[in-house]
Amino acid sequence: MTLAKMVPARRPAPIDPEAQPGSGGAPGEGGSGSAGHRRPGYGPLGQDDLERIHQSALTVLETVGFANPIPSCVEVLTRAGAVHGQDRRIRFPRALVADTLARAGRHFTLHGQDPRHDMIVQDGHVRYGTAGLAVHLVDAETRSYRESQLRDIYDAARIVEGLDNIHFFQRPMAARDIADPLELDLNTLYACVMGTSKHIGTSFTVRENVRPALEMLYALAGGEAKFRARPFVSSSTPFVVSPMKFAEDACGVLEECVKGGIPILLLSTAQTGTTAPASLVGAVVQAVAEVLAGLVYVNALKPGHPAMLGTWPFASHPGSGIMAGGSAEQALLTAACAQMARFYDLPGASAAGMTGSKQPDFQSGYEKGITNVLAGLSGLDLVYEAAGMHASLLGFCLESLIIDDAVLGHCLRCQRGLDASEAARSVDAIAATCMNGPGHYLDNGPGSPAPAAAYFDAGAIERLSPKQWCEAGKPDMLHQAIDARKKILAERFPRHVAKAVDDRLRARFGDLIRLPRSAMGYSER
Amino acid sequence: MTLAKMVPARRPAPIDPEAQPGSGGAPGEGGSGSAGHRRPGYGPLGQDDLERIHQSALTVLETVGFANPIPSCVEVLTRAGAVHGQDRRIRFPRALVADTLARAGRHFTLHGQDPRHDMIVQDGHVRYGTAGLAVHLVDAETRSYRESQLRDIYDAARIVEGLDNIHFFQRPMAARDIADPLELDLNTLYACVMGTSKHIGTSFTVRENVRPALEMLYALAGGEAKFRARPFVSSSTPFVVSPMKFAEDACGVLEECVKGGIPILLLSTAQTGTTAPASLVGAVVQAVAEVLAGLVYVNALKPGHPAMLGTWPFASHPGSGIMAGGSAEQALLTAACAQMARFYDLPGASAAGMTGSKQPDFQSGYEKGITNVLAGLSGLDLVYEAAGMHASLLGFCLESLIIDDAVLGHCLRCQRGLDASEAARSVDAIAATCMNGPGHYLDNGPGSPAPAAAYFDAGAIERLSPKQWCEAGKPDMLHQAIDARKKILAERFPRHVAKAVDDRLRARFGDLIRLPRSAMGYSER
Repeated sequence: MTLAKMVPARRPAPIDPEAQPGSGGAPGEGGSGSAGHRRPGYGPLGQDDLERIHQSALTVLETVGFANPIPSCVEVLTRAGAVHGQDRRIRFPRALVADTLARAGRHFTLHGQDPRHDMIVQDGHVRYGTAGLAVHLVDAETRSYRESQLRDIYDAARIVEGLDNIHFFQRPMAARDIADPLELDLNTLYACVMGTSKHIGTSFTVRENVRPALEMLYALAGGEAKFRARPFVSSSTPFVVSPMKFAEDACGVLEECVKGGIPILLLSTAQTGTTAPASLVGAVVQAVAEVLAGLVYVNALKPGHPAMLGTWPFASHPGSGIMAGGSAEQALLTAACAQMARFYDLPGASAAGMTGSKQPDFQSGYEKGITNVLAGLSGLDLVYEAAGMHASLLGFCLESLIIDDAVLGHCLRCQRGLDASEAARSVDAIAATCMNGPGHYLDNGPGSPAPAAAYFDAGAIERLSPKQWCEAGKPDMLHQAIDARKKILAERFPRHVAKAVDDRLRARFGDLIRLPRSAMGYSER
Repeated sequence: MTLAKMVPARRPAPIDPEAQPGSGGAPGEGGSGSAGHRRPGYGPLGQDDLERIHQSALTVLETVGFANPIPSCVEVLTRAGAVHGQDRRIRFPRALVADTLARAGRHFTLHGQDPRHDMIVQDGHVRYGTAGLAVHLVDAETRSYRESQLRDIYDAARIVEGLDNIHFFQRPMAARDIADPLELDLNTLYACVMGTSKHIGTSFTVRENVRPALEMLYALAGGEAKFRARPFVSSSTPFVVSPMKFAEDACGVLEECVKGGIPILLLSTAQTGTTAPASLVGAVVQAVAEVLAGLVYVNALKPGHPAMLGTWPFASHPGSGIMAGGSAEQALLTAACAQMARFYDLPGASAAGMTGSKQPDFQSGYEKGITNVLAGLSGLDLVYEAAGMHASLLGFCLESLIIDDAVLGHCLRCQRGLDASEAARSVDAIAATCMNGPGHYLDNGPGSPAPAAAYFDAGAIERLSPKQWCEAGKPDMLHQAIDARKKILAERFPRHVAKAVDDRLRARFGDLIRLPRSAMGYSER
């Protein structure tokens, strides 16, 4: 039985930010990418489409604008140059958006508590991570659903800590065993930061909850200045209620996070045909407009504050309006959003890896495979929802984290592309082998890297003949992942937070912290 | 319970042959593609890489050449300008290959018995189909393997007949219940032509078996001239033993098929690190060189004879040499081969959709999803192995045909791309909805096509909430496919071959035909 490797994440291969999707070129095969190589990619939109979508988004911002601004929002945005209309909508002149686009933060770092997990956005690497907000835990062993709990978040974080191809951890589930919003926000954050040293995304219910959370983060970092220098938590901020309305509470949270030094994921999640136009590109236009409004807002509060373009339009089944998160349409939507972020030279942060399937099965496999590989090849900086999610975001599965990590390994390998150098073309090797050689290439040394690093155990299964496979009890990835999940949760307790720091947190927050020591592997001490 | 639709295959969306992969542009969303639209795609190699690979292949053909030519091969190739060396290798001067490339058949049609299934190669459509040669049938219900039999081929053909996104049927399994080569070849062919009216690929063991097969085909077509005018069977011809040796029997078959009017799939199947260079691009160079030699051979026999570039390099696990058909490396290899075929403006026919998994499970899903979607986006004309195959070609699963068809629906939807026209950008719809409208898009009419047509039942499963899904008995695609397979095999017996024609075949071939009438749904008559 193989356990998912508990080793630090390797850096994914870079994508040359100069390269347009599909522009061709030959990056180093299996390597980390060489300077000067153009990296081929994929994009469903042409350059002129991107410009047209941009102009459409500007028109929407200028003529439609946003409803429901809170007073502080009105104040900061009108001061920046936005127009507060008679109809109480905030409209954004083209020049204001252009100015924001020129000055916005571009190449900041999303830190991990462990610097090995730091992610410089827009450095040419695609990063995959989790996101939420599922309300169920999916049990792959019993094929059942139950309400998700705080402990599940901690467990998910612990598993992600050891998976190579999941680069960041956004809280994937709601802790439904906690009702009070402050307790919920603080405990969610605590479960994440204790469970993984990778970069964390979380969210806050109301403005007032941000300050105590900052207190916790500053304590973990060793002081406010240290956290501000290396913010290892970003705020997933759904500041917009689509279409084109500010979300009151989330706007308050946004303002407080900017003040406190927390990077912002500017989140626009609308569904085609319900809260977004039915047309896929129309949904992209609206998502871009909404997120650009958020970008103006953030930069009006604090120029250059780290913010990601969270354009997350969701495909839905026509008629029912029910989400089709694993559809081909979703793959196209997300790839188009990635192209828009590259068009702006700003950090793109969209969603792929979702599936409508309720369990980690065949449907889950191809829906996650297709959407994640196209998100990666489209050069998306941060791919949220990439692992673990089911039922179009209603259920989260710990075993899926482990097997989805293997999918992401394939996606990253596809991004590394092919080496077409003279040596790689192997003309001499072919001649030597065929003319005076052995007639095969078994002794030809390296030249081909190992197949995708993150095979998990697919490779081991593959190497079994059907007969051997039967004799071995017909193993499959899912059952290996069930065993791995049990072993990881029994044995692996991250210790990146010093016990003394944890003691201080528990002293400060007292009963607010709901994960008992015993749940965190301290029981034996 | 939903049955896989038994309707004629819809035409897949065209890919503009003018477009280079990744060149951008906005095809009609969900439509059949409009003239003048560039279609974006994917390719791991740049234009200069393609030229270099071409030159490397020419060098290999000129300096290494092929060993083991049969006498007739020596005669026809030397007459065409190839050089038969002292070392008995046949070498191909650059000018000979260039001349072949200029004159080779490019835009021929691979016919179906039913003209609705005709495929004009290089018309800009990607077509997916099956291939072989599995030696086991995979039973998804019992998760077991058994030796494949003649009847399984007929059953697979019957299922493919009704699946929208599987466009052609190459015999996927070996009839291991038949030992005699002539009986094997004839019965395999018979099972295919009786099971589906789509284009068929098959193979012949030795030259002598082609003539009786032609007799059968001419009878089915209503005469030799009619078959030659609409050849509905092509020959999958492994004329090369990699690296760079002619296969004696297959060369005889090739010559006989060209004579008899059967299109040729020029098949080069080598594995990286064993029969092909370890380097992925080196394997592409060798595959291109081998297939170009076959193209010279075919065109020397009969200029312009329909032939497809069957560059099928297989990725393998380093060390073990065991095939890794579902790997990211395989996706890259196949996409690179597709690019080479487009470089030559010749029909590309490579392999994707393979998986190392023994069963239709999660691994099977993502491996098939990733490899098939990239094969399609790379503009491969004919994608073989796209459905049904397991265990890196050792096992074939009837249920997988049905669920893989859903994967291919997603792949085809991705190829159709996005509509970024002014109407699709929906600025007016956004304004109308937000400013004086209902604040949602539920009544906005069409604009977004239905999600990928070939959802099979994924859509139905998705529309269930977790609670509804539990109450419905936790359905999944695989179990629906098991039911669908049973229903199809019990009820659906294609009748495109008139009984009178079948009677004549049975009169002519007598006991040679091993599928009894009763197995073909005639029992009640």
